[in-house]
Amino acid sequence: MTTVLISGLGLIGSSIARIIKDGDAAVTILGSDPDDDNADFLLEHQMIDSRVAFTDGAKSADVIILAGPVSVILDQIGELSRLSLKDGVLVTDVGSTKQAIMTAATRLTQKGVAFMGGHPMAGSHLTGSQNGTVNLFKNAKYFLVTGSQTERQLRDFQKLLKSANVDWITTSAQTHDKLVSELSHVPHAVAAALVNSIAEGLADDPVGLKAAAGGFKSTTRIAASNPQMWTAIMMSNSEVVSRELAAFQQQLSQLEQAIKSQDEAAIYATFAKAQKTRQSLDD
Amino acid sequence: MTTVLISGLGLIGSSIARIIKDGDAAVTILGSDPDDDNADFLLEHQMIDSRVAFTDGAKSADVIILAGPVSVILDQIGELSRLSLKDGVLVTDVGSTKQAIMTAATRLTQKGVAFMGGHPMAGSHLTGSQNGTVNLFKNAKYFLVTGSQTERQLRDFQKLLKSANVDWITTSAQTHDKLVSELSHVPHAVAAALVNSIAEGLADDPVGLKAAAGGFKSTTRIAASNPQMWTAIMMSNSEVVSRELAAFQQQLSQLEQAIKSQDEAAIYATFAKAQKTRQSLDD
Repeated sequence: MTTVLISGLGLIGSSIARIIKDGDAAVTILGSDPDDDNADFLLEHQMIDSRVAFTDGAKSADVIILAGPVSVILDQIGELSRLSLKDGVLVTDVGSTKQAIMTAATRLTQKGVAFMGGHPMAGSHLTGSQNGTVNLFKNAKYFLVTGSQTERQLRDFQKLLKSANVDWITTSAQTHDKLVSELSHVPHAVAAALVNSIAEGLADDPVGLKAAAGGFKSTTRIAASNPQMWTAIMMSNSEVVSRELAAFQQQLSQLEQAIKSQDEAAIYATFAKAQKTRQSLDD
Repeated sequence: MTTVLISGLGLIGSSIARIIKDGDAAVTILGSDPDDDNADFLLEHQMIDSRVAFTDGAKSADVIILAGPVSVILDQIGELSRLSLKDGVLVTDVGSTKQAIMTAATRLTQKGVAFMGGHPMAGSHLTGSQNGTVNLFKNAKYFLVTGSQTERQLRDFQKLLKSANVDWITTSAQTHDKLVSELSHVPHAVAAALVNSIAEGLADDPVGLKAAAGGFKSTTRIAASNPQMWTAIMMSNSEVVSRELAAFQQQLSQLEQAIKSQDEAAIYATFAKAQKTRQSLDD
């Protein structure tokens, strides 16, 4: 009988609890979360078997899934390295960046504790255990950064999450962090700056943001996400994100110049290229 | 009996045809569009009564609605100023920018032809008459820039479009162009530059854009729009858009610096402010 500890029962952690129970109801799930609402909701709906303190749960688990914000994951890897864990335990995480986490995890590996980095590339601007769903990662990429886990532990973990119906991708921490910076962190920074810039620009307009239509709402939707979570992500991927934000700004400056000088051909070329790329992604 | 000419039977023009027919099936709608598919679809579904050449339709219309791209609207205002139109005709448009159009329309006003600028603040990344709907502008703002129309013509026009269920707002061309630059044109430029920058940054990644999740797709959705239409919009609002793109870039540079220097408090303040503003907009 497998015992799994999920630490962090928000959107991601609670979805993983649902996924594991959906795949094999006999797995015992221990849940740890500072938020009473998250834990109570999952207990009440029998998606976790009991609520535990992190260190207590860690000592009795066969699989430990760290599903809090990146900053908490980093702290918890430190805590785990000071505990006596079960033989054969696998520690994994769902953090949005991997280089800082894999570096921290060498403290576990040095003690003979298996660690494997993970990141399901899905999410929502919604948060909390009530918004979790067994389908949250369906057809999405689930990145695995192999560390010190055995081949068997990797296969068992994928089996544990079989109901997630994800596309497993094994990659390096560096490749992963560049990819998510481009697809997630840079867009997030851009959306947040856009909301702030536009709110400021329209501060004196009596209609202002109230006239926002679907396009604006869609472009800025992710700016409504949890600022604490996103601050932790930026802190742990700062070098990559700041470098790629600079690259984006160069592109935007070129477009700005083309618009300013009414260079019709250059504006059209930019928009046509973006349209072609964006249309190639399914919605 | 009122005869309306709608020139441009794409998403917006075809939605207006539906709205007018829904409000009063007895209104005669003449449709003009270079695209056979758009016109045929609306004829077949009896949303327009006949397809006409622009100048023929213009001469017999009581209301002329210019619903093509901004560049076409500007050309057609010139054409109309050389025609002999019906007494009491109202010319209006649905273009996304208003200063250039109101300036061009002085050629009509000088000939005693009433012109009123208009802009329904809604749309979609979809195009074409098949995607139009009577609800396209529902609960959205419909800006009117009063020109040389009479009070009666304004009221009759609003009555003609009563099934649209819009929020009518009378404004100046300058205030309008600043507002839509902030809420629509700047976000569009940003989304297009973001798609191009990220596609370039991920050109060597085997997974690349295929890993894009909901957040990225939402942020860049508007970049899939018609590049010709958007080029015309940028050309006609270039001064305002380029100025506000510069203001946005200042905000983004500040955030980039905060991320680069791992200034946690500054990153958090930016995200928390954006979250608060964005959450205040209904989805």
